Amino acid sequence: MAGRIKFQQSLDDLKQRLLVMAGMAEQAITRSIDAYRTRDLSICEQVFRSEPAINRLEREIDQMALDLLAMEQPMAIDLRFILSVIRINADLERVGDQAVNIAVRVREMGAFANTDLPVDIPRLASLASAMVRKALEAFVEADAESAEAVLKMDDQVDEMNDAAFGALSSLIKERPELTPQSLNALIISRNLERVGDHATNIAEDVIFWVRGADVRHSMSKK
Amino acid sequence: MAGRIKFQQSLDDLKQRLLVMAGMAEQAITRSIDAYRTRDLSICEQVFRSEPAINRLEREIDQMALDLLAMEQPMAIDLRFILSVIRINADLERVGDQAVNIAVRVREMGAFANTDLPVDIPRLASLASAMVRKALEAFVEADAESAEAVLKMDDQVDEMNDAAFGALSSLIKERPELTPQSLNALIISRNLERVGDHATNIAEDVIFWVRGADVRHSMSKK
Repeated sequence: MAGRIKFQQSLDDLKQRLLVMAGMAEQAITRSIDAYRTRDLSICEQVFRSEPAINRLEREIDQMALDLLAMEQPMAIDLRFILSVIRINADLERVGDQAVNIAVRVREMGAFANTDLPVDIPRLASLASAMVRKALEAFVEADAESAEAVLKMDDQVDEMNDAAFGALSSLIKERPELTPQSLNALIISRNLERVGDHATNIAEDVIFWVRGADVRHSMSKK
Repeated sequence: MAGRIKFQQSLDDLKQRLLVMAGMAEQAITRSIDAYRTRDLSICEQVFRSEPAINRLEREIDQMALDLLAMEQPMAIDLRFILSVIRINADLERVGDQAVNIAVRVREMGAFANTDLPVDIPRLASLASAMVRKALEAFVEADAESAEAVLKMDDQVDEMNDAAFGALSSLIKERPELTPQSLNALIISRNLERVGDHATNIAEDVIFWVRGADVRHSMSKK
């Protein structure tokens, strides 16, 4: 019985570490978009500097999960929980990667005039970040219904990204001198669309854990 | 003892299914590039039609892995093997996604004149595919050294993708009427760069499984 209580405590520790990981990934995205808005390259540097810490925490969480799998014979729902943590952990690390990709693009844009572009990157970013946050809330609450709401938000992110692609292509054709800034904005928009994809993966993992059903590729659409 | 032999047999079945998954993902990439070369939209359709089968196999493999984790108390190396399969499986499914993304772009390009672009997409694709194939060979042979060779190949893919970005940006500036084709080629190049990233992830998983060490973020660089 004491072993069981200790095991539950370890599962809770694992969850807490994953939430720290989520906070770091989300902060990295927020910073990269602050850098985009302000063109402040020192914020880009903060994003680059935070990456090794995110990577270290990813390894630490994986090791905790692996130790739990090795030492105990978890019951079905605990097993699904641990596997979900492993998957969510990988997705959060990739959210951090997207923040780095965005910061690289912002740094590139620094060489060119700051110009008005037909894409609302901060709005797209806040939508993608909200998806990550809501997916993690669903994880904390073990709430499959909230997780399903995240899947629906992804359509909006995809639409905004598609609209950005169209608007930026037209701009490039009309004003080729704006090509570098437009291409960088186009890639940042795609990076944010991928953040939305990672949030979708996380939401699907929550549903898988809570309901024991694999919803991937059925409820959400590509 | 019989239970142990049966367990080893199940591990081998799992490996065989993962190799089928790898073959399907690789074929999807090959087809999407055939479609690019020939602008044959019926090949795009083949890529779209193969996606549900890849997704089904991903779920099947995950379920096999989960059942093995739930039913047995695997030893450390077997546990690492099963976790590696779960991760490699997810990466292969995302390679399939990239093939779909490429096919979507090829279909878009169909509306515009076929023009010579300063990017050798088939060469980039064959390098990225070779990475996936070699990572899977390293997996079959449990060969960490071959897996390390895959990590080195990724630098070349990144360089080719960066060069494509530069060359296509310049082309767009000089000849804005080629914007749609150039943007689509630029995105296909990035899709292939992501295939290389997935192969890198797979190679790292092989090293993790064989050596018991987590090499992520240390040997390979972003």
